[in-house]
Amino acid sequence: MGGSKFTAKFKEVYDVLKSELLQDPAFEFTEDSHQWVANMLDYNVPGGKLNRGLSVIDSFDILKDGKELSDDEIILACALGWCIEWLQAYFLVLDDIMDSSHTRRGKQCWFRLPKVNMIAINDGLILRNHIFRILNNHFRGKPYYLDLLDLFNEVEFQTASGQMIDVITTLQGEKDLSKYSLSLHRRIVQYKTAYYSFYLPVACALLMAGEKLENHIEAKNVLVEMGTYFQVQDDFLDCFGDPAVIGKVGTDIEDFKCSWLVVKALERANEDQKQVLYENYGKPNQECVASVKELYKILDIEGAFLEYEKQSHEKITKSIEAHPSEKVQAVLKSFLKKIYKRHK
Amino acid sequence: MGGSKFTAKFKEVYDVLKSELLQDPAFEFTEDSHQWVANMLDYNVPGGKLNRGLSVIDSFDILKDGKELSDDEIILACALGWCIEWLQAYFLVLDDIMDSSHTRRGKQCWFRLPKVNMIAINDGLILRNHIFRILNNHFRGKPYYLDLLDLFNEVEFQTASGQMIDVITTLQGEKDLSKYSLSLHRRIVQYKTAYYSFYLPVACALLMAGEKLENHIEAKNVLVEMGTYFQVQDDFLDCFGDPAVIGKVGTDIEDFKCSWLVVKALERANEDQKQVLYENYGKPNQECVASVKELYKILDIEGAFLEYEKQSHEKITKSIEAHPSEKVQAVLKSFLKKIYKRHK
Repeated sequence: MGGSKFTAKFKEVYDVLKSELLQDPAFEFTEDSHQWVANMLDYNVPGGKLNRGLSVIDSFDILKDGKELSDDEIILACALGWCIEWLQAYFLVLDDIMDSSHTRRGKQCWFRLPKVNMIAINDGLILRNHIFRILNNHFRGKPYYLDLLDLFNEVEFQTASGQMIDVITTLQGEKDLSKYSLSLHRRIVQYKTAYYSFYLPVACALLMAGEKLENHIEAKNVLVEMGTYFQVQDDFLDCFGDPAVIGKVGTDIEDFKCSWLVVKALERANEDQKQVLYENYGKPNQECVASVKELYKILDIEGAFLEYEKQSHEKITKSIEAHPSEKVQAVLKSFLKKIYKRHK
Repeated sequence: MGGSKFTAKFKEVYDVLKSELLQDPAFEFTEDSHQWVANMLDYNVPGGKLNRGLSVIDSFDILKDGKELSDDEIILACALGWCIEWLQAYFLVLDDIMDSSHTRRGKQCWFRLPKVNMIAINDGLILRNHIFRILNNHFRGKPYYLDLLDLFNEVEFQTASGQMIDVITTLQGEKDLSKYSLSLHRRIVQYKTAYYSFYLPVACALLMAGEKLENHIEAKNVLVEMGTYFQVQDDFLDCFGDPAVIGKVGTDIEDFKCSWLVVKALERANEDQKQVLYENYGKPNQECVASVKELYKILDIEGAFLEYEKQSHEKITKSIEAHPSEKVQAVLKSFLKKIYKRHK
């Protein structure tokens, strides 16, 4: 997703926040727990691509429209960016346990470390709680503090709710493909990914810029649309992407995921082809996976994806251009540029 | 802990809150997820003793000093009480996974149900998020809304931090008794139990009564002291209580818990007796457990407990009597009366 001119500064702020959290007056650490939290943070928080976090300060910079950011503004925007990275870390640590994952960001999943195991659940809670310690520390007293708390609470709730639909349809053991539809897919993606990855960073930047979020429902809708598009790409790359480029071997078919591809295939399939999907989807068996991929070829799911990509891009561009504020338009366009036709 | 005159009303409010949460406009439920949340709530939230929840309205009633509560006040105080019960449910659902527990409140632990399993982790998050939905729904606009958010955030953070010290000393596999001390025990108990079980209900009642929490540090200290005392009783009953009365068979010895009893025993033991503890504590073997219990008899840990109970009661009573406000005194006394010399 390309670099940000704030990357170096952003990384510096991590160390500041970490050291503040390790001296939090609301808790007397023991030596062991102090060390534990320090390790846990370094292992789980800073190792991602940092796109979500950086996009807070990048968006805020665009909203300031050429005016240089003060040192204070830079630190605050970076702190909010890190809150999103902390939120992401919290969800990933717990999702990996639920999904029995093995690796994350090129390392073993945190709960796979023998000394950690189920302690990872509590570590997830600690990560989540840190967000509100950071907000309390840096934003209490700001006119938008309450809006910030409500925003993070609402987005966390939506993400957990999206994750709920995902896990109860995927994991509950019934493996019932007839429940999968474009509308279910859209709902999972919108709640589980789009709000926190796309809407939240921009909403943070808007609040810092003195805006009220109820005046930006349009921008929210466009961002949720982009988030949906981003996840459809992700579903596509899981099956058709180059593992060497995307850094992982996709397993959505084996895992019975409600992927855009299977939903689209169900839509296009005749009765016999549906039978093939019912018999082979969600089985950890290479022949079954191959049958599903073969069917995706026959049904030209790749073509369907390219068509979706084109239409979605047009729709999003139109919505952006209809937006009354040029500054907000610029923020939204910078997001779209980052994700359109990505290969990883 | 005896009855409250508000018990029936309190139970009614659960149904109201549940139905509000199932119609939350921030999330579009699927049919399956609607059903899932309804079941999950009924299984995990209302089945406890409800002491923590009821003590919000009981305390508020005392603070009102004879003035009758309005219908609106009753509903709000009950809603806050339920927020604490939701917080408790959230922690218990996740603690049971971390501790590999089997039963809770006379039923199988939620995560032990085959259709639930690791989905219980996400259910824990949903429970936690419900608290802020309830607060947002009923308290946004109240002058003490922000204080309420900060209070719940701070207490949740302290509880998770206490749980962290507990799990990293108990579960991390090193089983090193030399780390156990009265000060470690105190720290675990204070953070993990006392804040949310004792301070939080009274703090909620104080906020509703228009008080500022920074003026009630004294009351907070007394409540944390009572919470500590309550947990020491719990530790005592785990080993010496009557399983038929307390409703469970204690396993603190097998589980290598940092119990007040083992800490006290380590303090009183000579080198040979310490050796017995080092060799037998934390082993899932009835002979080992018997050796530890035998040593507790020799060291008269029961006598030490009775002495502690007496001194702690005196200290707490003195602190209460030194409190400047008679109404707050009455609240604190009602708490102390409920827990002193309890047998279950």
